[in-house]
Order: sequence, then C-alpha cells, then structure tokens
Amino acid sequence: MDPDAVAKAFVEHYYRTFDSNRQALGGLYQDGSMLTFEGDNIQGAAAIVAKLSSLPFQQCAHAISTVDCQPSGPPGGVLVFVSGSLQVGGEQHPLKFSQMFHLIPTSQGSFYVLNDIFRLNYA
Amino acid sequence: MDPDAVAKAFVEHYYRTFDSNRQALGGLYQDGSMLTFEGDNIQGAAAIVAKLSSLPFQQCAHAISTVDCQPSGPPGGVLVFVSGSLQVGGEQHPLKFSQMFHLIPTSQGSFYVLNDIFRLNYA
Repeated sequence: MDPDAVAKAFVEHYYRTFDSNRQALGGLYQDGSMLTFEGDNIQGAAAIVAKLSSLPFQQCAHAISTVDCQPSGPPGGVLVFVSGSLQVGGEQHPLKFSQMFHLIPTSQGSFYVLNDIFRLNYA
Repeated sequence: MDPDAVAKAFVEHYYRTFDSNRQALGGLYQDGSMLTFEGDNIQGAAAIVAKLSSLPFQQCAHAISTVDCQPSGPPGGVLVFVSGSLQVGGEQHPLKFSQMFHLIPTSQGSFYVLNDIFRLNYA
C-alpha cells in the first residue's frame, strides 16, 4: 500500500464528486464516520451527505494546492491533509480552505473516511 | 477520555513550548513519529526536533484561531486540527498556518504525537 497513491486517488475522486454530485459522496463514509465542518459536528454517512448537500450554494469548484499524507494507525490507515481554494457559484473570489481526512481500509480492499475536518481559512 | 479536553491541553502545551523552547518538544514524539513540514518528511523524535530547531528564525509566537478534534482509531487516539497565525521575529506580517496532529495514548496515561502535518496558508 502506497499512501501517496491512495491519497492522490482519493483527493481526485473526492473533490471531483463533490463538485459534480455531492449526494454521491455517501459511499465514502460509514455509520461511524465523523465530519467537523466549520465547527459543526456531524456523525454518520447519511447525516454527512445531508449536511454537504445543504450547503448554501448549488455550484462549486475546488482547486487543490497541496496534498500531504502519512500512514497512520490502525494498520493500513492513511491521513490526508489538503489545502486549496473553493470557488462558489455567484461569488467573485475563491475561498481558501484546509481539510483533513483519516482513511481506513475496508475488507473489500478499498477505503472509507472515518474522520473529516474542514475549515475555511479567512485572510 | 474527553477528546476536546485532550486537544485543548495539547494545543496549549505544544505551542507554548514551541514558542519558548523548541528543543523541549522532543518529549511529545517517539521513534515512529512522522512530521511533514511544508512537504518535507521527517521521522523520529530526534530528527523532528532537529528540524524544528533548525527553522530560520529565533523567536516566534503562535496565535491559535480554531481547534477542532475528533476521536479516532486506534482506541483512545485523538485527531487535532489547528488553524492560526505565526509571527516570526523580524517579519512584519504574521503567516497563516494549518496543522494537524494524531495523538496516541501511551501506557503512562499520556499521549504522544504519531502524525504531525504543517502547512503555511499563502494568501
């Protein structure tokens, strides 16, 4: 398992899906998954998708600046740390953000998101 | 174990120590600890302290804006996600940063840093 390859593939898939069809992100989370979004704590795949789908914009486009990753416990887990900017429909200026994910291997040879923390970086 | 209390105490201790005596941060890391600092990968407490001690400024002061945390695997682990700004001696303007830590419980009832990822947020 190459953490860099896992992180790169995950980041591409996650933000492409976020920008095209947020509802489809549900498959990346499980019941024990946690999202902290700008300080709001949400647990479970269904509640996380509901939160992401309810964000007050229809269209958005993420541009990724940096992706860092490290292997982590439990065995096979990967931490992914992302910085970038987010262009939201109707807004002139992109918003800077940072986000981290803790990816856990599944028995099917894939990964799910156990932890997801998102913050906008205000200038 | 209250993850919020662990995160708050850790963040206060970490940045106070960083700003007053970077060498003393070594006690927070172990041989398997990983630091990714602006894309540089460093492993092990001694190498991490050497890296932090070699940063090209003598004085610095962190100001913390947000601290988010979540429990994480392995059992008792805590993920901490920090945003803030860093005033470096000689520089007029503070630098914005984001940083994450994965804290793992020790057999002595304390925590050590398994994962540490740091990024400056360029405006």
